[in-house]
Amino acid sequence: MMRTAFACREFTDDPVSDDVLYRVLDTARFAPSGGNRQGAHVVVVRDPAVRRRLGELCQPTVAVYAAQRAAGEVPFNTVVPTGVDVETARATGSGFWPLFERLDEVPVVLVITVDLAEVASMDKDLDRVGLVTGGSVYPLAWNIILAARNEGLGGVLTTLVVPEEAMVRELLGLPETHAVAALIPLGHPAHQLTRLRRHAVEDFTTVDRYDGEPLTEGAA
Amino acid sequence: MMRTAFACREFTDDPVSDDVLYRVLDTARFAPSGGNRQGAHVVVVRDPAVRRRLGELCQPTVAVYAAQRAAGEVPFNTVVPTGVDVETARATGSGFWPLFERLDEVPVVLVITVDLAEVASMDKDLDRVGLVTGGSVYPLAWNIILAARNEGLGGVLTTLVVPEEAMVRELLGLPETHAVAALIPLGHPAHQLTRLRRHAVEDFTTVDRYDGEPLTEGAA
Repeated sequence: MMRTAFACREFTDDPVSDDVLYRVLDTARFAPSGGNRQGAHVVVVRDPAVRRRLGELCQPTVAVYAAQRAAGEVPFNTVVPTGVDVETARATGSGFWPLFERLDEVPVVLVITVDLAEVASMDKDLDRVGLVTGGSVYPLAWNIILAARNEGLGGVLTTLVVPEEAMVRELLGLPETHAVAALIPLGHPAHQLTRLRRHAVEDFTTVDRYDGEPLTEGAA
Repeated sequence: MMRTAFACREFTDDPVSDDVLYRVLDTARFAPSGGNRQGAHVVVVRDPAVRRRLGELCQPTVAVYAAQRAAGEVPFNTVVPTGVDVETARATGSGFWPLFERLDEVPVVLVITVDLAEVASMDKDLDRVGLVTGGSVYPLAWNIILAARNEGLGGVLTTLVVPEEAMVRELLGLPETHAVAALIPLGHPAHQLTRLRRHAVEDFTTVDRYDGEPLTEGAA
């Protein structure tokens, strides 16, 4: 599954039964979390009106993403400021990913939240946006995609709804301590993507130091 | 692998060859990242002196973790302030996890970093520690544990070295834009843990809303 699970954004009309979904989550739940505190929660969104609303909440962020891409920027870069007029982009909207315009038509959408009172975060004192909290929730989120793949399903791990967290909180009745970590649409893939473009091992590994030699195949 | 990959913190003396490690990373690399920008880097630490130093850098944070546990707190809780004297705990040290006192004896240690200029972060404007950046690196980190399991290896996804990021940066020569996301010791497990304690699906899922019905087995 690890080598073939692609980002699936187009689905057939075939439903995803609760039985299948239960099996997916029953495998995914063995993911680790900091201190094994298991602070994640999964809201299984079956109500089409709620799915549609979640899609609407993604769209301003999709529009900013599209505008940054069009401007040759790395979207949502945490280091380099954007030259894009974010408010205009948000207001204008875009059809960059049609998926979010018809999220009500996707068989099921999972919203993964994480209870910040129940997770470990080691980097809250660093003077930048932390990321370590993600270590307690994204292994589960990614397991869901892998386990879904094993059931013939496809999905995509998205975070586009996160900037509208306050509205997601109201829509789904989330407790104040829960952060929204991911939104995962799941269904039967309309197409199979067979080649994933990823860096070779030599391109993202080095030995002992960042500027060391790459790890190569067939080495001792 | 998903159901059986446990947090392995004790290893035999058997080495992990570069060949095996290459295979592990060659499978893990298919993990997704925001915009497929693949901002993660893996430093493969073979030098025992560097591994030992990394273990030393984990120890103050392990000591705080142990002190918070002893005080009945949820360590590194991002919501509730700690009542523990953090500076004293850091200075005192602890043998809570002996692993970090002999990291030089572990066959290989991977340090996973992520280039913040190359990842998507949707929550940098929320007024709390962000977590979404983790979505671009922890699927890879977790894939490494799963792929290692498939090779008969064990490991554990840790973030304990993150508070000492500045010193890790110097030790490994990391670029300024890279954040430290995880440290993963890998080796042959000294013991096999066969039962992972995890919540049942019913305990972490609800339908349509946070306060909805749990997803149950054998439902329609």
